[in-house]
Amino acid sequence: MRILGIDPGSRIMGWALIESDGNGYRHVSSGIIDSKDIHAVSDRLLFIYREVGGIIDSYGPDAAAIETVFFSRNQRSAFVLVQTAAAAMIAALNSGVPVSEYQPMMIKKALSGYGRADKEQVQLMVRRLLNIDHRLIADTSDAMAVAICHINSVQFKNRLAEHALSH
Amino acid sequence: MRILGIDPGSRIMGWALIESDGNGYRHVSSGIIDSKDIHAVSDRLLFIYREVGGIIDSYGPDAAAIETVFFSRNQRSAFVLVQTAAAAMIAALNSGVPVSEYQPMMIKKALSGYGRADKEQVQLMVRRLLNIDHRLIADTSDAMAVAICHINSVQFKNRLAEHALSH
Repeated sequence: MRILGIDPGSRIMGWALIESDGNGYRHVSSGIIDSKDIHAVSDRLLFIYREVGGIIDSYGPDAAAIETVFFSRNQRSAFVLVQTAAAAMIAALNSGVPVSEYQPMMIKKALSGYGRADKEQVQLMVRRLLNIDHRLIADTSDAMAVAICHINSVQFKNRLAEHALSH
Repeated sequence: MRILGIDPGSRIMGWALIESDGNGYRHVSSGIIDSKDIHAVSDRLLFIYREVGGIIDSYGPDAAAIETVFFSRNQRSAFVLVQTAAAAMIAALNSGVPVSEYQPMMIKKALSGYGRADKEQVQLMVRRLLNIDHRLIADTSDAMAVAICHINSVQFKNRLAEHALSH
């Protein structure tokens, strides 16, 4: 399966395509969608919508996974964050790509076995699993993490279903 | 000009097409997008995105106007409300229809001259301006109100620009 991971951000949104054949993970491609110089929120939403649509057209993921957005103290920036995450989700959904959301704690737990792991520990685990030997920017490594979390979750459900069938 | 007014709602979204030739307003069409029986948020976002896209294809508005969403006490419902409003905005933007946002107080002021007018006063004013002699559901009358607010705002700016040119 080929999964598009998205790390939402109102200024920088990380994305990563990760594949798995059931034995480990493979990094296909990753990058950031940088909208920090686009000042009107509506222009930013449209830009993100089209960029995510373009990534989906290029790479044809089977599904997308996105980190759940939580409200920050600043209401205005929380607003824009939810809107930009929605733009990415709708781009995927409108291309027929189902979207799953994962809470930050679930992603950390899936990667490190520990829900309160720090960003550095998550990045180290992401790099080990994908065999990447250079540092990653946080937006990209977080996008890889949510894709891996989704792959784990799907594979776990599949094993449960197989187990149920075999008994 | 022909304006699509949108009253965001996570379960019921009101919409209205209002025209103006500079002398008063004309109600073209209006209705609601009812997604309350769609339980998965992602399904709801896609439904709203496509419904708003369909309205735009049918009526070809010059611009859209939407009431700004404010956070409620309940974080989860505020979340869904911002997401569904974003779905409507992105549908318009992706069809090349610019979107303006208006705060509730501005809309009330544009309609009744008073920023703290209640929903009943706004509805009465909407019905008078559009020559509608029957009661409207609140979602629809709020969508008409934001469209009228946008028309007023554009016409006011145009008059200012003409005034500046003639001096």
